Amino acid sequence: MAKINLETIAKELNLSIATISKALNDSFEISFETKKRVLEKAKQLNYQANPLAIALRNKRTYTIAIVFPEMDNNFFSLAIKGIESIAYPMGYHILIYPTNESFKREKATLELLHNGRVDGVMISLSSQTKETTHIDKLIKHNLPVVLFDRVSQKLQAPKVVTDDYKSAYLATKHLIEVGCKEIAYLSFSEHLNIDKQRLKGYRDALFDKKMTYDPKLIVKCGNYEKENKMIIKNLLIQNIPDGILASVEELILPCIENCNELNIKIPNDIKLIGYSNSPIARFLNPSLSTIVQPAFEMGQKAASILIQLIDKKYKGSVSETIVFPSEIHIRESTQPSECIKFV
Amino acid sequence: MAKINLETIAKELNLSIATISKALNDSFEISFETKKRVLEKAKQLNYQANPLAIALRNKRTYTIAIVFPEMDNNFFSLAIKGIESIAYPMGYHILIYPTNESFKREKATLELLHNGRVDGVMISLSSQTKETTHIDKLIKHNLPVVLFDRVSQKLQAPKVVTDDYKSAYLATKHLIEVGCKEIAYLSFSEHLNIDKQRLKGYRDALFDKKMTYDPKLIVKCGNYEKENKMIIKNLLIQNIPDGILASVEELILPCIENCNELNIKIPNDIKLIGYSNSPIARFLNPSLSTIVQPAFEMGQKAASILIQLIDKKYKGSVSETIVFPSEIHIRESTQPSECIKFV
Repeated sequence: MAKINLETIAKELNLSIATISKALNDSFEISFETKKRVLEKAKQLNYQANPLAIALRNKRTYTIAIVFPEMDNNFFSLAIKGIESIAYPMGYHILIYPTNESFKREKATLELLHNGRVDGVMISLSSQTKETTHIDKLIKHNLPVVLFDRVSQKLQAPKVVTDDYKSAYLATKHLIEVGCKEIAYLSFSEHLNIDKQRLKGYRDALFDKKMTYDPKLIVKCGNYEKENKMIIKNLLIQNIPDGILASVEELILPCIENCNELNIKIPNDIKLIGYSNSPIARFLNPSLSTIVQPAFEMGQKAASILIQLIDKKYKGSVSETIVFPSEIHIRESTQPSECIKFV
Repeated sequence: MAKINLETIAKELNLSIATISKALNDSFEISFETKKRVLEKAKQLNYQANPLAIALRNKRTYTIAIVFPEMDNNFFSLAIKGIESIAYPMGYHILIYPTNESFKREKATLELLHNGRVDGVMISLSSQTKETTHIDKLIKHNLPVVLFDRVSQKLQAPKVVTDDYKSAYLATKHLIEVGCKEIAYLSFSEHLNIDKQRLKGYRDALFDKKMTYDPKLIVKCGNYEKENKMIIKNLLIQNIPDGILASVEELILPCIENCNELNIKIPNDIKLIGYSNSPIARFLNPSLSTIVQPAFEMGQKAASILIQLIDKKYKGSVSETIVFPSEIHIRESTQPSECIKFV
């Protein structure tokens, strides 16, 4: 069975394709009788108009793009699930563009979205992204853009984030209160605001608790698992921290692996807390203290703002920042030393 | 800055839109001089042709759809990552359609893909899918289709799967060999071939090891976390198995949770193994024995077959099944009882 298109209907009725097209578009050039014949035949053949043709005519694709750093990451999976829960019931299709943390790829992807492929774009920046003229260009082309999680404050677009400063401050304060004196901060990007805010929260907590700030304990990690494992191993061997705050989920497993291999006991020798949306954190050995972002709700909010922008019904400010609070879940990996029973 | 389209160029040159369109398409109706002027102006204004218009003209969207059961699932995240690693370098865009395990939604989604929106579709069936006329319809419309992981053998399309029978057989045999006598099988779908094959592997292993098959130990789970927790709780209370084979990742956490709450010790009182692509399985307490599917490679294979089908370069049979072997990772959760040290 071949596709049913205008040509099929034209052949069946012995009319030209142009006539069929005009009839289906209710053109005044076509007689009532012909229109009726065409519509009946289209119905009988189960003809569906090509969605691209409709999109071109209406200048509306009902398609949105999500440009984001990582596919296999619990935060982004949940955020996309949230986006999808809003977009699907409203008839939107979703294109996904994971950048694999590459600025080059993020830039190349946005180039593809300028000219009519989508009605709007949701972006979470790659860890390499230093400057955002590629996003500015989209916004200046009047394409609706919403940023989420990893945003740039310079951009004139709505932003959906979590309280990065506060959550890192509270997590660091918690590490100090359970007895840590040498707390390392694992950074994933020197450029991004999200990492800067988390680092600032960490530093301010140290300051407020009258602790020394040691730049050697700020460790910049990379994008590759093996590379990160080596970087963290060096930290553990050379600087011997007694606490770690991991700024992203990907940095937690290499911490645990290294500690196991170096026979550093969590939480006896070192305490560990990290940003993570993994549902398994509480079943780890020891169970992992985490900072949990409301990923699903952030996705939902970003999608509903984007659709409002597309519909020209958005009432907020063009560069509004919506902040969702994160939750800190204290578990065994940051247990105070006096509570630890040696078995 | 507004979008640069044919109208913009037409206004700038004081020509009709039709002339611009014909000039850009190198029509014989347009003079060489005019073509040159139009091309120069288009370049100067940084005009990019609308990708939908190009797609309509070439009958090629360079877009593929992935219709799959669950967004926040390690197997599908990795499989999509594999698909993307093949599709992106070849210039394809990816639309995602999670069905949330709903047959109704799977069917409604495929209806949207019939008529020109995509060049091909990759499908992994929902747990509710009993019949596949909705997919047959796509295939009969000559739309390239590849099935992956959760497939139906009835469909005339290439299929990429794992050795479900063999891996379940070996996992069950392992449970028997470490001392289990009452092994439960947690099923996620009565209809799907993948679940039937895994169940058959389980039954045949029992048979070969001269164990009794007890239908009460075959437990059909649902799509909701809370529902599954209750179903598994009832199993643990009423039938007291000493081993569990979980047919999908989502059923493992409710097992662990219930065991913790009912004070059933893993692996002392019950041994647990399950299909899972979670990188954290080995850091659980106790570390979890798993059957690991090569999700990334399966995604890559499915994508490369689909693109070959689109390019009419596929050399395999139309209903070929490609089988990737899974790996069984034995860890603490299925430790033989004599090895367990009580501390």
